[in-house]
Amino acid sequence: MSTSVFQPVLLHHANRLINHGPTVLVTSTFQGRHNIMAAAWSMPVEFDPPRIAVVIDKTTYTHELIRRSGVFGICIPGVAAIDLTYSVGRVSGREQDKISALNVPTISGPETGVSLVEQGCAAWLECRRIPEEHAENAYDTCFAEVVNAAADPLVFSGGRWQLNDANKALHSIHHLGGGVFGSSGTTIQGRSLL
Amino acid sequence: MSTSVFQPVLLHHANRLINHGPTVLVTSTFQGRHNIMAAAWSMPVEFDPPRIAVVIDKTTYTHELIRRSGVFGICIPGVAAIDLTYSVGRVSGREQDKISALNVPTISGPETGVSLVEQGCAAWLECRRIPEEHAENAYDTCFAEVVNAAADPLVFSGGRWQLNDANKALHSIHHLGGGVFGSSGTTIQGRSLL
Repeated sequence: MSTSVFQPVLLHHANRLINHGPTVLVTSTFQGRHNIMAAAWSMPVEFDPPRIAVVIDKTTYTHELIRRSGVFGICIPGVAAIDLTYSVGRVSGREQDKISALNVPTISGPETGVSLVEQGCAAWLECRRIPEEHAENAYDTCFAEVVNAAADPLVFSGGRWQLNDANKALHSIHHLGGGVFGSSGTTIQGRSLL
Repeated sequence: MSTSVFQPVLLHHANRLINHGPTVLVTSTFQGRHNIMAAAWSMPVEFDPPRIAVVIDKTTYTHELIRRSGVFGICIPGVAAIDLTYSVGRVSGREQDKISALNVPTISGPETGVSLVEQGCAAWLECRRIPEEHAENAYDTCFAEVVNAAADPLVFSGGRWQLNDANKALHSIHHLGGGVFGSSGTTIQGRSLL
């Protein structure tokens, strides 16, 4: 039984979960096989319907599972999951069942059945691949529609990130290179000069 | 005369400038016209050759100038440029010459001639559009090759971000929504669990 505290995120707010460029975990599931990888390269491409793009090398096990199932998960790791993120970014799922080896608890996505990670994560999105062969072949870029999303209300609620000192473990992480991640320490409100 | 302190960034390091998902400024120039806009949605898609994708609504003035010139700039604003970033994200270049109205000093990109902003910014990339009509039409997603890059060595040197308390004004910013930006306060080294 899951003891999830995650709450649904409205679909038209879903892209705010990755609007600020966090490094994400991509999860995939197909016929009893599953995998998890880290992806620094993802972005929203449209708010409504919520669509995203994520770079997944076409040689990866994740890519294979997504091609077969047509779905994948985007989980947003917090500072608490930095070592998990770093670790799954270094080993292929063809060599090792990383989810089992690391004892990562997963839930099954309500819309897609894909494995999703909540522990140490701030949020997740369930995504349905939009078949764009050319973009996948030429740029390893997969387009997808977000069909469901949820977040830990401790850090994302009312359609907004709520970052403060008390929820630092769930602040998103941003890969700077070489295994070093930045995390949003300060938040600042922009002012209009025009 | 420019008094730039920026130093060249090796092309195979260029994508590290946006690897962590900063909000960027997109600059464009065509036959004496120029524009600047904010873009939260960009990502690298390949390291070598360095290629990126950035979402630029096809109705924008920026998109028009890029279609005509074939080139654009990606400037990485620091905390010092939050208000600039916020402001140019709210007004169209068709309504107002934002660069002039805000008195933004620009230099001319050595490779492409595109206007680039250094003041308040950590780095810039000169990009050459790769014509991908379908991705632009369906997802507002422009693919481009990075042909030149430079950074302020105070905050990016040796191919790495060097974030510390002394250079906070040049830490990248990440749009969380509603004009609120996060900036990388803390950096943490990941450890392998596998």
